[in-house]
Amino acid sequence: MLTCMSAKASVYDGSRLWLPQPVENNAAVIKAPKSSSATINVATAELRSSWTGAPVEMKLIKDKSLGRDGFIITPGKDKVTLTANSAPGLLYGAYRLLAMQTAGKSLPNEIREVPSYDLRILNHWDNLDRTIERGYSGSSIWVWDELPATISPRYKEYARANAAVGINGVVLNNVNASSSILSAGYLHKVKAIADIFRPYGIKVYLSANFAAPMQLDSLPTADPLDRQVIKWWKDKASEIYRLIPDFGGFLVKANSEGQPGPCDFDRSHAQGANMMARALKPHGGIVMWRAFVYSPADADRAKQAYIEFQPLDGQFDDNVIVQIKNGPVDFQPREPYSPLFGAMPSTDCMVEFQITQEYLGHSNHLAYLAPMWKEFFSYVNPKSIKAVAGVANVGDDTNWTGHPFAQANWYAFGRLAWNPALTGEDIADEWLSQTIFNGCNVPAEITAEVIDIMMRSREAVVDYMMPMGLHHLFAFGHHYGPEPWCAIEGGRPDWMPSYYHRADSAGIGFDRSSKGSNAIGQYPDNLAKRLDNPALCPEEFLLWFHHLPWEYQLPSGDTLWDSLCRHYERGVVETRDFQRRWEHVQPYVDPALFDDIQRRLKTQVRDAIWWKDGCLLYFQELSRLPFPDDITPPVHNLDDLKKVNLGISNFECPTADLLNRQR
Amino acid sequence: MLTCMSAKASVYDGSRLWLPQPVENNAAVIKAPKSSSATINVATAELRSSWTGAPVEMKLIKDKSLGRDGFIITPGKDKVTLTANSAPGLLYGAYRLLAMQTAGKSLPNEIREVPSYDLRILNHWDNLDRTIERGYSGSSIWVWDELPATISPRYKEYARANAAVGINGVVLNNVNASSSILSAGYLHKVKAIADIFRPYGIKVYLSANFAAPMQLDSLPTADPLDRQVIKWWKDKASEIYRLIPDFGGFLVKANSEGQPGPCDFDRSHAQGANMMARALKPHGGIVMWRAFVYSPADADRAKQAYIEFQPLDGQFDDNVIVQIKNGPVDFQPREPYSPLFGAMPSTDCMVEFQITQEYLGHSNHLAYLAPMWKEFFSYVNPKSIKAVAGVANVGDDTNWTGHPFAQANWYAFGRLAWNPALTGEDIADEWLSQTIFNGCNVPAEITAEVIDIMMRSREAVVDYMMPMGLHHLFAFGHHYGPEPWCAIEGGRPDWMPSYYHRADSAGIGFDRSSKGSNAIGQYPDNLAKRLDNPALCPEEFLLWFHHLPWEYQLPSGDTLWDSLCRHYERGVVETRDFQRRWEHVQPYVDPALFDDIQRRLKTQVRDAIWWKDGCLLYFQELSRLPFPDDITPPVHNLDDLKKVNLGISNFECPTADLLNRQR
Repeated sequence: MLTCMSAKASVYDGSRLWLPQPVENNAAVIKAPKSSSATINVATAELRSSWTGAPVEMKLIKDKSLGRDGFIITPGKDKVTLTANSAPGLLYGAYRLLAMQTAGKSLPNEIREVPSYDLRILNHWDNLDRTIERGYSGSSIWVWDELPATISPRYKEYARANAAVGINGVVLNNVNASSSILSAGYLHKVKAIADIFRPYGIKVYLSANFAAPMQLDSLPTADPLDRQVIKWWKDKASEIYRLIPDFGGFLVKANSEGQPGPCDFDRSHAQGANMMARALKPHGGIVMWRAFVYSPADADRAKQAYIEFQPLDGQFDDNVIVQIKNGPVDFQPREPYSPLFGAMPSTDCMVEFQITQEYLGHSNHLAYLAPMWKEFFSYVNPKSIKAVAGVANVGDDTNWTGHPFAQANWYAFGRLAWNPALTGEDIADEWLSQTIFNGCNVPAEITAEVIDIMMRSREAVVDYMMPMGLHHLFAFGHHYGPEPWCAIEGGRPDWMPSYYHRADSAGIGFDRSSKGSNAIGQYPDNLAKRLDNPALCPEEFLLWFHHLPWEYQLPSGDTLWDSLCRHYERGVVETRDFQRRWEHVQPYVDPALFDDIQRRLKTQVRDAIWWKDGCLLYFQELSRLPFPDDITPPVHNLDDLKKVNLGISNFECPTADLLNRQR
Repeated sequence: MLTCMSAKASVYDGSRLWLPQPVENNAAVIKAPKSSSATINVATAELRSSWTGAPVEMKLIKDKSLGRDGFIITPGKDKVTLTANSAPGLLYGAYRLLAMQTAGKSLPNEIREVPSYDLRILNHWDNLDRTIERGYSGSSIWVWDELPATISPRYKEYARANAAVGINGVVLNNVNASSSILSAGYLHKVKAIADIFRPYGIKVYLSANFAAPMQLDSLPTADPLDRQVIKWWKDKASEIYRLIPDFGGFLVKANSEGQPGPCDFDRSHAQGANMMARALKPHGGIVMWRAFVYSPADADRAKQAYIEFQPLDGQFDDNVIVQIKNGPVDFQPREPYSPLFGAMPSTDCMVEFQITQEYLGHSNHLAYLAPMWKEFFSYVNPKSIKAVAGVANVGDDTNWTGHPFAQANWYAFGRLAWNPALTGEDIADEWLSQTIFNGCNVPAEITAEVIDIMMRSREAVVDYMMPMGLHHLFAFGHHYGPEPWCAIEGGRPDWMPSYYHRADSAGIGFDRSSKGSNAIGQYPDNLAKRLDNPALCPEEFLLWFHHLPWEYQLPSGDTLWDSLCRHYERGVVETRDFQRRWEHVQPYVDPALFDDIQRRLKTQVRDAIWWKDGCLLYFQELSRLPFPDDITPPVHNLDDLKKVNLGISNFECPTADLLNRQR
């Protein structure tokens, strides 16, 4: 049997990502436009190195319909013509050509692509000490201590990988921002990175701490209407742009989870954002102002971002974009879309997805997230938002992302930010052909099987973690395992799972209906009406919006309790099925990769059982109902599970050893 | 719903075993024979206390066909007549009456029972420090330190329980015997126990250390032909019988696993046994001489007892019984019967079963062993043996046996020693009605379900531990978990699992065929011929007798590898099914009992998966074959499992906590 290994020169370790592989002694004929640039040089070099097809002629044209970054590929008789309005457009076209070549796809008569968004941004939650909040793939790739003198070769590889998938902006540091990033010393380091990114069409952005003027220069206030403060930010912007003329702008987490912000000075989010935006405006920079706010107030947490931001509609300057998490709570395995989308028609809004799997099994679980993001776009018209951001899952692990399949989420994020109409299946197919199946002779049915695993994987996680609209049943702090029973004395109520599941002897679910918190009232009338009626509310959101009796009868005829049990069961069964199907892939991939995935799937199955047992046993203490007979009975004891303490922080993924020891 | 609890006065904790419950202000009319005795008094008292039916008249008669211990129950117009040749016969009849009453069974026209064996003996492997070798239910019930002054009330309860089930002999101490038990001080303690047992028709026996004359009285030798030694044993016998006139005799483990014996002095087992037998003979005592021998020799261990003992046929005195373990190796979950049975026609032989679950999951796993013992009797004619012994599973736990269902094995051993023709189902039914279902209003279908669990349980253990004739894949020392990979440098080869499974890249199994060790040649010709042909050898013994290629095709059409995988899978699936069915029992039993069993079943399922994964992953490294698609893939990693070290001794059962911590 012709295996991957017999066909491939080197072992697959994931370090190459989806980047085109250089062809030895390649004889590609590539013609670049006369008005050359660093970016065009990159495009030319990539094609020269790896393109094995007909000669390629790159041309800069003027075609408004292509937007800033679009391109056209036209295969001709004896050459392929690649045209774009801009050098980045040519670069994106070049990468598309190479991706199609790797996938073994023949070129159609014309490829015409225009990205849906001008801003396609990765948010790194990287701290300056190289820990990464909610990062599960090693340390930050930014080696601040060595910068700017020493430039890791990974910066360039990272830029290439992003450009190849259409990402054109990177926020380098955590939204829980250290002011130090804005100090002169750090800005020189940032400049070094920006210089590397520039040829790849990527702008650098920074997360800014709203209190930076106080923290860096001992100003007595950070009040956005204070003239000293305003001047401080203006001067800071000038300082940045002197070093980085194409600096992208600021991302700001303000008055959220303890971060400083304008409300500390009785100013609104709009006043704070506009002040910073005006400092950046002369230089062409923008402010991305996060709407992730929830005070420890009485109001339903899911309502708070809307309550705080919706009234500000129309008050933001035109270089401010309000960045809204996809759902109203916090990156749960499944949430309904945030009702802020569509509720601020006079404000530029962007969505913030989470690529890193904070709530989806960290680097241990296979969870392909394209279907989750597509689900968002099925509710929110892609044209109604201005830009797309994703919280990166990148670290300094050899394969960049910890779980080999987590790469596919980085890839899929970029592709969907480019074009939300792409299907999850097509993106998975693209990624597979350029990565783990690259150079392997994989039969179509095996590829289909892996795509199938990927496509079902996120729903499996939802099923074994928190189906039917349940959310935030996570262990305190690290968000890895189940802890629906978690109750920390004196803890913020809205940080406790019971705040969200509201399970008691009568039933389960958060009543957000018109009779409850009326979070439903924040949605458009038509939708709200449907959500408000438990019989019409989609099952996947049922317990998000309703508190229902354990024996409530679903339209399916099942009781709520039985259905809940069956969802958890299905999560385990699905995960086991992934494991079984993965076995079929063995002959076709690198043995170490095969083993690695096999091992992670085992952990995932064990975790799925842990989740299922923990949640069902806990809820059973309240429901006092038996498990339906078609459910595999629990193997754990609730009191044992309650003792589990992984002892990991918010930037660690539990290792197999740790999981073995602790359960 | 009328539950067990609403009908029952007290909580079920298993401490009462299957003993009849006293009825308050009972008005039973019981007529005892004139020639009273302590034993008849017990029978009378038991009936007076608990019998609620018609008056009972007990009569001593002379009827040779009833043997020593048989009885007849004849329900008449206005009384029930119970007749027997002996007081113990009446006692057994009384207990049978009470058992039938508890089970709610009406009396047929006549019950006539004659036990198949005169000797029905429990072997305690209890050490004098109260540890129990292979005991998993607490410390020894014999509190030697306090004896003879203090008499635990449990001695009498233990005697009642044994009498109620027909057991009439107890070896008090471990076969790995301390000579101290034969010292004057200890013999007084033994006498105290014997005095309590006597009214219940139970004789006391002791395990004797063959070197006792050297150890206790500094004789220079223990040579059985030495006159001083002969005299020592004669004197010791007289000393014992002065204290205990009905002392039963000695059980001897000689020249086995480091124990001293006649072979140390170049004498045969027969010479050793006869010397001791002659010391006991004047007093009516017997010697039970164990055939459990295997030297660290080249010969197949399964052959050694036969090689050593068969030539001695005819050389043993008539008060010696050779005690042979049911199988040729050592109490494995499944073994073929030992070929010594039937091979010593001129020697009295008895079978030694193991009630304690040394190799069947200790006190954590539900394994009802009646089917295993019935399987033995399907190969060995019950009439061909003289007596039956069982290694006890009794300890000082509240419920006596650790696992509540392990009581059923003690019960079933007694019942089968009484009558090997009883069915496992009937015995289970009897036991349930007198124990966990006693006083509960349990529907017939629930009883049937629990009997079904019990009847399938031992085969499930075989499937998840070592199906198809595999054996001794146990972890070194404690025999709890899997360790087919175990290899201890310098260790006795026949103590290593690889000695038994012989798995290599070519195949698996121990070639004991005529082309291999020819252990098959020790069996009768007809059977040997069938066993020798892998196509005719019963699948359950296939790898016991044959080394076969991984892809060997079974009559079923499956390959050996696939079938092995499916057996392991079935073991897990069965155990899960027990767990599921146990849920149905909840309304009918004591809640604490329900929880306890539920918890143990969880452990059993986890262990079944541990076994399956450990064995299959290990064997897969050799077979290099994929798991069939209908097998649930492993959840463990072999290297993790290889690291498991439970750190328990040969008298501990791993607790759930330990299992959680170590895996």
